[in-house]
Amino acid sequence: MSGTTQILDLNRYDPATGGGSALLQARQRHAGASSVLFYADPIEMVRGEGVWLTAADGRRYLDVYNNVPSVGHCHPKVVEAIARQAAQLSTHTRYLTQVVEAYAEKLMATFPAPLSNLVMTCSGTEANDLALRIAAANSGGRGVIVTRAAYHGNSAAVNEISPSAWKSRGPAPHVKLVPEPRDAGFLAAVEAACAELREVGLSCMIVDSIFSSDGIFAEAPGFAAAVAAVRAAGGLFIADEVQPGFGRTGAGMWGFARHGVVPDVVTMGKPMGNGYPMAGMVTRPELLARFCEETGYFNTFGGNPVAAAAGLAVLEVIAEEGLIENARDVGQFFREGLADMAARTPAMGEVRGAGLFIGLDFIDPDTGAPNAPKASRTINALKDKGILIGAAGLYGHTLKIRPPLPFSRENAETFLKALGEILTN
Amino acid sequence: MSGTTQILDLNRYDPATGGGSALLQARQRHAGASSVLFYADPIEMVRGEGVWLTAADGRRYLDVYNNVPSVGHCHPKVVEAIARQAAQLSTHTRYLTQVVEAYAEKLMATFPAPLSNLVMTCSGTEANDLALRIAAANSGGRGVIVTRAAYHGNSAAVNEISPSAWKSRGPAPHVKLVPEPRDAGFLAAVEAACAELREVGLSCMIVDSIFSSDGIFAEAPGFAAAVAAVRAAGGLFIADEVQPGFGRTGAGMWGFARHGVVPDVVTMGKPMGNGYPMAGMVTRPELLARFCEETGYFNTFGGNPVAAAAGLAVLEVIAEEGLIENARDVGQFFREGLADMAARTPAMGEVRGAGLFIGLDFIDPDTGAPNAPKASRTINALKDKGILIGAAGLYGHTLKIRPPLPFSRENAETFLKALGEILTN
Repeated sequence: MSGTTQILDLNRYDPATGGGSALLQARQRHAGASSVLFYADPIEMVRGEGVWLTAADGRRYLDVYNNVPSVGHCHPKVVEAIARQAAQLSTHTRYLTQVVEAYAEKLMATFPAPLSNLVMTCSGTEANDLALRIAAANSGGRGVIVTRAAYHGNSAAVNEISPSAWKSRGPAPHVKLVPEPRDAGFLAAVEAACAELREVGLSCMIVDSIFSSDGIFAEAPGFAAAVAAVRAAGGLFIADEVQPGFGRTGAGMWGFARHGVVPDVVTMGKPMGNGYPMAGMVTRPELLARFCEETGYFNTFGGNPVAAAAGLAVLEVIAEEGLIENARDVGQFFREGLADMAARTPAMGEVRGAGLFIGLDFIDPDTGAPNAPKASRTINALKDKGILIGAAGLYGHTLKIRPPLPFSRENAETFLKALGEILTN
Repeated sequence: MSGTTQILDLNRYDPATGGGSALLQARQRHAGASSVLFYADPIEMVRGEGVWLTAADGRRYLDVYNNVPSVGHCHPKVVEAIARQAAQLSTHTRYLTQVVEAYAEKLMATFPAPLSNLVMTCSGTEANDLALRIAAANSGGRGVIVTRAAYHGNSAAVNEISPSAWKSRGPAPHVKLVPEPRDAGFLAAVEAACAELREVGLSCMIVDSIFSSDGIFAEAPGFAAAVAAVRAAGGLFIADEVQPGFGRTGAGMWGFARHGVVPDVVTMGKPMGNGYPMAGMVTRPELLARFCEETGYFNTFGGNPVAAAAGLAVLEVIAEEGLIENARDVGQFFREGLADMAARTPAMGEVRGAGLFIGLDFIDPDTGAPNAPKASRTINALKDKGILIGAAGLYGHTLKIRPPLPFSRENAETFLKALGEILTN
């Protein structure tokens, strides 16, 4: 069982508890074994606004966890765009519409020149599933390199490259796991994986460019060299921007740019429509053309006019409200505050991140070993103080700080104050 | 190349044409080789309402093709539900919300008792991909039986069971194709496929219960017996209700019920949110539990409150406006009109269907052979008369009549009149 799954277990409702509200019972009855609810005592939410979520009991929670409502919960401009377009026209892309091409034009202007084709899908899973097929069609191989606590989605093919979703299985023969990039060991591990995959044929390396599920490794030493090694071995590089994309790192729209690499394929998802189900895959025209030679690809809901209107509003809000600059500034303030506290707090380990994506390790003060129970207790204590947060990483000991992008210094101070109270008590 | 792909080629924009409007050029630049546009001269759409779509040049088209806006393009009740919920709360399902469980309750009440668990996804593809994994986890096999012109979606795993999306490839070793159900040959073919898959292990048979891509075979002789044969051989039966579901057949909510079978897994999609990207998979609790033992499954956008609000509005509109009864009544009127015309028109072959899903074959008057060019010319001639329609089937010679469900007798008469004019000139 992976660390991510472990820590989740400590912070989720245990169905064996039984009982609970009528709503909770209905949920368990409908969703069955697939039901996963945050917290031992799950929260019923009724309203979202900016960086706040309001529960049915009237309590307001500061959201330091959710990255889908990236420009703020229920942002009025996005809501208005969805409502207006849904009332006017919502169809597939086998007819032409102005809004879809206006969105494609604006989105593609954020990518370096060789990446000029866009396929819109419904979810990051669909985008990654398609990316894998494009890599296979162009490389001729099917071997994939991923990090050891990665999560890329939930389809059959994408589950095989998502170790954090596995409960007992190991990797399939065409999948090689490498550690998160902490030092030169990353490059060495990727080179070794390329060699091991020679027999099945190397297809690609796919990584989240901020290594979220692995515990947030923003600096990623050896990243660019590892990409070069994969290409030298005949593989493609897929940047999964579902987590770092759309300005979260505070260093531009896309996480890969921080590492000075231009991917062969880029996938994006969660924040793309601020909650409207949409995602996308961007690549070079010749890679897409090669794939389309052998199969037709059509996505009924992908890139529909309402998705395009939502996506266009998201891009406009990011620019108008200066959310990339805010992510950079508040993120730095936030990391400095956490680092300052860590220097005085033996249970706090490394603080890592870029922009408003921060990882904070909890460790055993004596041995420095990962301390998942401490992370879990902290998550629950923060909930009691009205703050929503989660964990990540192979050992589940990393607090995943990933709020909506309008998060302010004042919001960061609220979090720091609450965390300080918890850790000094 | 499959017939479905062939016929599409005759009715779509040819990129080699070049030129065209600025919008068309933008589309080709962004979507690259993945771009597929209906008609040699693609239509720019600007508005949808009920059974009508309006183009940029002001021309109104009667929509006899689109099944996603199933309760009518831009239905005000669905639009209002989306706008209201998007402004209030849009989050994942790891918190509880009233609207999600209210929707699950209402939806699950339409299924026979053993089918009581629901997993919500973004697309029919995701639902079918998950269904295949559930079948594999429970059967222990991975062999899949599908019809020879089937389409079930676009993920890596689902593409392998979607022959109509293949251009040159044949089936993978774990996939066996059977013909569409015209007579006792269907049962025999399924029994043979079960035997052939013994070595890799039979997992399931998955069929669209109205066999849309195969050319619409509503009667499907031998269907129930084939399901029994699959089960006797240790496989599960998955009903793909993405096309026939939500009342289209005029015989209740689900197409499988017309055949007196209760599936092990049911998947649904396109019409579920009238255009809002949502889909779902329904199964028995023990099948879902077995699958969840080995893997976590979570879908970020799946079953979010806005999806639930849209889905709830769709169910309410179906009931309030009597759309199932309308599909039955108008469908029968429409089929009778077509059959009447076919008896007088040598180029028209069989008329098949249920409710508002009708297949009309075009044949060579002398030999009775499939006549795809005639179907294609008719589709284009209908466009010139302001009617949108498409084709289906292994040979691409079947007109696929599949309008939004509020389609009236008057709408059917408009179609019949236009078709008569085309076929007698």
